[in-house]
Amino acid sequence: MKTVLSKITIISERLLKDDLIDLIKEVGAAGFTLTAVEGEGSRGVRAGDWEGRNVMIETLVSEANADRILVMLNERFMESYAVVAWVTEVAVLRGDKFLGEI
Amino acid sequence: MKTVLSKITIISERLLKDDLIDLIKEVGAAGFTLTAVEGEGSRGVRAGDWEGRNVMIETLVSEANADRILVMLNERFMESYAVVAWVTEVAVLRGDKFLGEI
Amino acid sequence: MKTVLSKITIISERLLKDDLIDLIKEVGAAGFTLTAVEGEGSRGVRAGDWEGRNVMIETLVSEANADRILVMLNERFMESYAVVAWVTEVAVLRGDKFLGEI
Repeated sequence: MKTVLSKITIISERLLKDDLIDLIKEVGAAGFTLTAVEGEGSRGVRAGDWEGRNVMIETLVSEANADRILVMLNERFMESYAVVAWVTEVAVLRGDKFLGEI
Repeated sequence: MKTVLSKITIISERLLKDDLIDLIKEVGAAGFTLTAVEGEGSRGVRAGDWEGRNVMIETLVSEANADRILVMLNERFMESYAVVAWVTEVAVLRGDKFLGEI
Repeated sequence: MKTVLSKITIISERLLKDDLIDLIKEVGAAGFTLTAVEGEGSRGVRAGDWEGRNVMIETLVSEANADRILVMLNERFMESYAVVAWVTEVAVLRGDKFLGEI
């Protein structure tokens, strides 16, 4: 009933939202979740008054697709934007539908 | 000081919020956290204009209770609703109070 | 390209937000993310009408710094406040910049 998958979490300025959604769709992600967040980092992402200036994007993918997404993030955004991304191993209910490959 | 527990994360349409809270209370969860989120999936959960149309529910439980919650979600909601659920292993500060059993 | 780090998640009443940010900065955290959340727990953190009455703070640190943060949370807040905190192991893209020590 459970499938071990990789959950990718990406936090960035909100202006990158559509580009990041396009990126995860490129690798065939079956969906995503967006949360409005605030934050502060070493490169200019600053905490505001709860306006949700940044966005957290989460998606469930295979381990191989998680690595693809990280490579693409690294190549396209890490040099020029304040983007943070990480992978968490999770056990997903009926998770086989998230295993789509490109 | 730390206890290894299962964090359940459930994402669904907001109309299921109360039913899902009832479900996790049935297994004796000591609490939960709600976040307003947006999203897009393969079954009609769509991204809106940041109105927080979907809800993310998180709760910390024992591994056995996590499995109980997944079984209940599967039986009650997975056929008819756009529900996504996963389990993450976490180390909780003073986590023994989340170990309540039914 | 990936570094295994500890993601600390802290949920508390919003009035503790600045104290908690100060605490994680004390150990040298390179940044943090804030999410407005609702919740219900065994000690009076209650679910409201989506006003985001509680705050979720997340930060990426070394395993040693994660333990330092848990000890500090335990000493300063766990007795008197409704604080929940846990650690998740994650693989972070270009995560070496989060390894700062005090």
